[in-house]
Amino acid sequence: MLEKKRVIIDTDTAGDDTISILMALHYFKVEGIMITGGNVQFHQQVENALYTIQVGGKSGKVPVYKGHEGPIMGFGESQHRTVEDVHGKDGMGDSFFEKAIQSPEEGHAVDFLIETIHENPGEIHLLAIAPLTNIAMAIKKDPAIVPKIPHLYIMGGTNNALGNITPSAEYNFFVDPEAAKIVLHSGIPITMVGWEMCTKYSIMDDNDHSEIEALSTKGAQFFKDVNKVVMKFNKSVHKLNGTTHPDTLLAAVAANEEIMTESNLYHVDVETVGELTRGYSLVDINNRLERSKNVRVCEAIDRSAFKEMLLEVLRSID
Amino acid sequence: MLEKKRVIIDTDTAGDDTISILMALHYFKVEGIMITGGNVQFHQQVENALYTIQVGGKSGKVPVYKGHEGPIMGFGESQHRTVEDVHGKDGMGDSFFEKAIQSPEEGHAVDFLIETIHENPGEIHLLAIAPLTNIAMAIKKDPAIVPKIPHLYIMGGTNNALGNITPSAEYNFFVDPEAAKIVLHSGIPITMVGWEMCTKYSIMDDNDHSEIEALSTKGAQFFKDVNKVVMKFNKSVHKLNGTTHPDTLLAAVAANEEIMTESNLYHVDVETVGELTRGYSLVDINNRLERSKNVRVCEAIDRSAFKEMLLEVLRSID
Amino acid sequence: MLEKKRVIIDTDTAGDDTISILMALHYFKVEGIMITGGNVQFHQQVENALYTIQVGGKSGKVPVYKGHEGPIMGFGESQHRTVEDVHGKDGMGDSFFEKAIQSPEEGHAVDFLIETIHENPGEIHLLAIAPLTNIAMAIKKDPAIVPKIPHLYIMGGTNNALGNITPSAEYNFFVDPEAAKIVLHSGIPITMVGWEMCTKYSIMDDNDHSEIEALSTKGAQFFKDVNKVVMKFNKSVHKLNGTTHPDTLLAAVAANEEIMTESNLYHVDVETVGELTRGYSLVDINNRLERSKNVRVCEAIDRSAFKEMLLEVLRSID
Amino acid sequence: MLEKKRVIIDTDTAGDDTISILMALHYFKVEGIMITGGNVQFHQQVENALYTIQVGGKSGKVPVYKGHEGPIMGFGESQHRTVEDVHGKDGMGDSFFEKAIQSPEEGHAVDFLIETIHENPGEIHLLAIAPLTNIAMAIKKDPAIVPKIPHLYIMGGTNNALGNITPSAEYNFFVDPEAAKIVLHSGIPITMVGWEMCTKYSIMDDNDHSEIEALSTKGAQFFKDVNKVVMKFNKSVHKLNGTTHPDTLLAAVAANEEIMTESNLYHVDVETVGELTRGYSLVDINNRLERSKNVRVCEAIDRSAFKEMLLEVLRSID
Ligand SMILES: [Ca+2]
Ligand SMILES: [Ca+2]
Ligand SMILES: [Ca+2]
Ligand SMILES: [Ca+2]
Repeated sequence: MLEKKRVIIDTDTAGDDTISILMALHYFKVEGIMITGGNVQFHQQVENALYTIQVGGKSGKVPVYKGHEGPIMGFGESQHRTVEDVHGKDGMGDSFFEKAIQSPEEGHAVDFLIETIHENPGEIHLLAIAPLTNIAMAIKKDPAIVPKIPHLYIMGGTNNALGNITPSAEYNFFVDPEAAKIVLHSGIPITMVGWEMCTKYSIMDDNDHSEIEALSTKGAQFFKDVNKVVMKFNKSVHKLNGTTHPDTLLAAVAANEEIMTESNLYHVDVETVGELTRGYSLVDINNRLERSKNVRVCEAIDRSAFKEMLLEVLRSID
Repeated sequence: MLEKKRVIIDTDTAGDDTISILMALHYFKVEGIMITGGNVQFHQQVENALYTIQVGGKSGKVPVYKGHEGPIMGFGESQHRTVEDVHGKDGMGDSFFEKAIQSPEEGHAVDFLIETIHENPGEIHLLAIAPLTNIAMAIKKDPAIVPKIPHLYIMGGTNNALGNITPSAEYNFFVDPEAAKIVLHSGIPITMVGWEMCTKYSIMDDNDHSEIEALSTKGAQFFKDVNKVVMKFNKSVHKLNGTTHPDTLLAAVAANEEIMTESNLYHVDVETVGELTRGYSLVDINNRLERSKNVRVCEAIDRSAFKEMLLEVLRSID
Repeated sequence: MLEKKRVIIDTDTAGDDTISILMALHYFKVEGIMITGGNVQFHQQVENALYTIQVGGKSGKVPVYKGHEGPIMGFGESQHRTVEDVHGKDGMGDSFFEKAIQSPEEGHAVDFLIETIHENPGEIHLLAIAPLTNIAMAIKKDPAIVPKIPHLYIMGGTNNALGNITPSAEYNFFVDPEAAKIVLHSGIPITMVGWEMCTKYSIMDDNDHSEIEALSTKGAQFFKDVNKVVMKFNKSVHKLNGTTHPDTLLAAVAANEEIMTESNLYHVDVETVGELTRGYSLVDINNRLERSKNVRVCEAIDRSAFKEMLLEVLRSID
Repeated sequence: MLEKKRVIIDTDTAGDDTISILMALHYFKVEGIMITGGNVQFHQQVENALYTIQVGGKSGKVPVYKGHEGPIMGFGESQHRTVEDVHGKDGMGDSFFEKAIQSPEEGHAVDFLIETIHENPGEIHLLAIAPLTNIAMAIKKDPAIVPKIPHLYIMGGTNNALGNITPSAEYNFFVDPEAAKIVLHSGIPITMVGWEMCTKYSIMDDNDHSEIEALSTKGAQFFKDVNKVVMKFNKSVHKLNGTTHPDTLLAAVAANEEIMTESNLYHVDVETVGELTRGYSLVDINNRLERSKNVRVCEAIDRSAFKEMLLEVLRSID
């Protein structure tokens, strides 16, 4: 049997982050989880990650580290925007689960990341399903980690498509464009799964939800609980008929690259300055700017394979 | 028989602008043509417009006015970028046609536009197939024209899709984003046909070109001549297998709105400030910004109807 | 006797603009006055210019042309900021003078400017004491006027000093930075008198006002009237103990360059993009950017000579 | 006898940084020195700091920590600009001193700073004489340090005056405007000594240098050595007749606030976006923006007191 790949997850745990963590716990050896400012209140995100580990049956076995509570350029009056409207007040579909048994670790996520990479050069893959603040700050603090990271999978940005938090920007890139810029220019090998992959391939509609419910596992019940609020939000705001699973899709792609049926290496950058376009991800498909091709961009997914991976994860949790 | 609608065309005449003018001459009563800085050298664009009128059999009957030779914020070292690589040195597929018989008018295009609109309130539709400098400058000089313009059809921008001159921007909006911003915020009723409509519905491939050639008219020959360079350019740069006809598509939509099988009213704006996104057109499909819906955006075309219109025009010129 | 130099004035007539016009009427042959959007409501500015001509005893002899009512990039919700707090509701110190006898001309200021310059190449000097919208639009509409303008005197910007409308910007450059940029890069020979020249050399304190009042002329009375509001404004906002006369200083410098005891040719540009610095005027004293030296910047004034010029003007109006 | 105040210095050690360190070693208990990217090559700056400690007679007693080697948004092709032209290739006036005995510490400057502040709440003053990268990154990593820092003295920015690296910006703010913005908005009590204080009060001309040379101490010799290159640079570029001592002035102000004969609390911010003004420091003297007054800005210095402090330091080193 093949040994599982080792990963560290960076997450603003709320909604689909939880299912993504469950998938990662299933397919990878998760060395640790880092929390970064994003979806909901920071302490709630920490709690959500700890609870999710417990749901995944790994309580006490996967350390959770607190990282940056907000974006690089967030301060004073200009704090970042949280999205309780999408994921519920608790980020868990207003489920208000009981408190997790496990506690977060001492020490800063950035230092955990730097140390773990240095101790395991070439071994630790990164799954980024949140604003890129922690990863950017680790790169700035110690650029020597860059050549020791074999691959970074990013859920973020869009590939010449509509954004989700503004028309021009996807949430993770929008919250911390400076961090995204630092990471994209770092030299780390990157695979990016943009928001349009999520809307095209990850949506679970009422039928899908029925199928999942029919699994009758704890995993299926948890999936149902955390997705209560986003189902309504997607219908009213994004005109999408179902729940969206960008972070889970990212974990699935990292776990099995073969479900990514189309991808290409492009120059990708992020706008930090624009009046209307802060957080916009530029993907230079036709190489008009003739700049270095720094990101492999996911362009198509085998949806049934993805769905089967999701079902397997939820089936296994009981 | 219905009387033809009256239009004024604003064009940076090169390549597809010529076919668009021929289509407008066929379906509309063209009151005048204004030249604005864009595709190729200004004096060449003037000449191209005059020659095209001659090809269309209207020599001496449609006045051509010279307008702004470059964008509002173009000066000194920062002049705008012309695209002889797309359209040929002469903007006519390197055809180097003979000099036209007609000469351009005295007087500035902006004054022609203002006067014609005031003399014919509610009567003059505008077809904009170039950077929006002239139209913006007319609005600034005399805002009283705004309520007297029944409709403005714009070829420009993209609807959450890849640009053509940079990854983030379409050429007409890129060359003069300030003008685009002035026009989009003017209050004039606008229909926008973006670049992605052109790549989805207007491409004429080798079979289409054979079909056109088989018409054996002067119009068909002219079409072949002006499209010589862009055919190669599209294959190498945009990975498009055929010639692109954004301006002709715009004229067709204006002539027969029914070929536009899908369209919606959205808030549309343009980025002027961005480091990577100058000229980016924001189309707020899900109304995330909750701003006024100022533009009807064309979202689908009946391609065969469009092609039939094009064939009719080329067939009729002999 | 020397013939008077011929000038056209561009003004947003309110407060000190009026005294500047009186000074210009005294020392120059004023060919016309153009109104541009700025200090107060546009129609009020037109009226103020007409009334001022009447005060200066030239009613019916100096045509007044209406120009752009607002800045290039002003539209919809983003109109420019007027400053009735500085100059009074009527822009005349809340004097609410009777209606002027003269009426404004037909035709647009920009066309008047272009025609007058072409008819008198090398003859017409420009005095710009307002946002530079009209002059910029004239340059854009007909760049051929540029070599026919012998000199343009601009009241605007600051030379590495505190602004007046924001900390970083002077009002005229702030209201229309795009226009300022177009004018500064036009190639016209320019002398700039910045806001800090005004605060250093033009302030008239209580003693100066007593001296002026003692003239007991109609001119002195008018001066007193229009300066009522700004006296209070300067004390509370700018911590300046007196009235400020930037526009009058500009006219004086143009009339007699010898009162400018220090000046140097520098590269001058204006910020259009900044988050905090829109309208900031860059004056590259040490030539760090190694760009073309496009503006003669006034750096010191013989204040007593300036005051004497002002007194002479006010004395002569009776 | 009063106990000396405890400080940590953040420096890009080259030129005047060295004299500033000597002054701090004399008047303060220096708990540590942090190196940040700036003036010259990073490893050279580390070496310069170590050598300066040795000159100051404290070899082995003041730990030196390596911090961020470049600004937050510096990466790939857009690294920051070093200024060997100002300070010599080695940053020491091309003196090429021997290697220092002391070595830098293990551990990152940012962690040293965070730990020292937490262990000594309210005790550690900060002297910032370099781009603010390290201090900003410490604030971002652990915002809990903010209320434990009694005061931060910053050499940086200008108070409505000409910059030194561009017309609009001073070097330290220009190199890392994002860091400056984070620090200025942090809530830490700040005193800022801008570049114009340096040019008005800190210049040592030939007579001053003769006076210093006459001290005939090792300190005087070192002063002479490190200032060799900047003397020439100032004459040719800044038109200043002497050497400039911004960092030493900052240390002097921190050591004895009474030499600061004028200062006021203002709102201060920094431009990060501008096309011409990146790194510009806005100082809102007249409170036009009505924002919080976050910085005490030094506006005048008792120059003879400052010079006496400098002489005392150089006299004492022998
Ligand atoms: Ca997430
Ligand atoms: Ca065109
Ligand atoms: Ca004025
Ligand atoms: Ca320094």
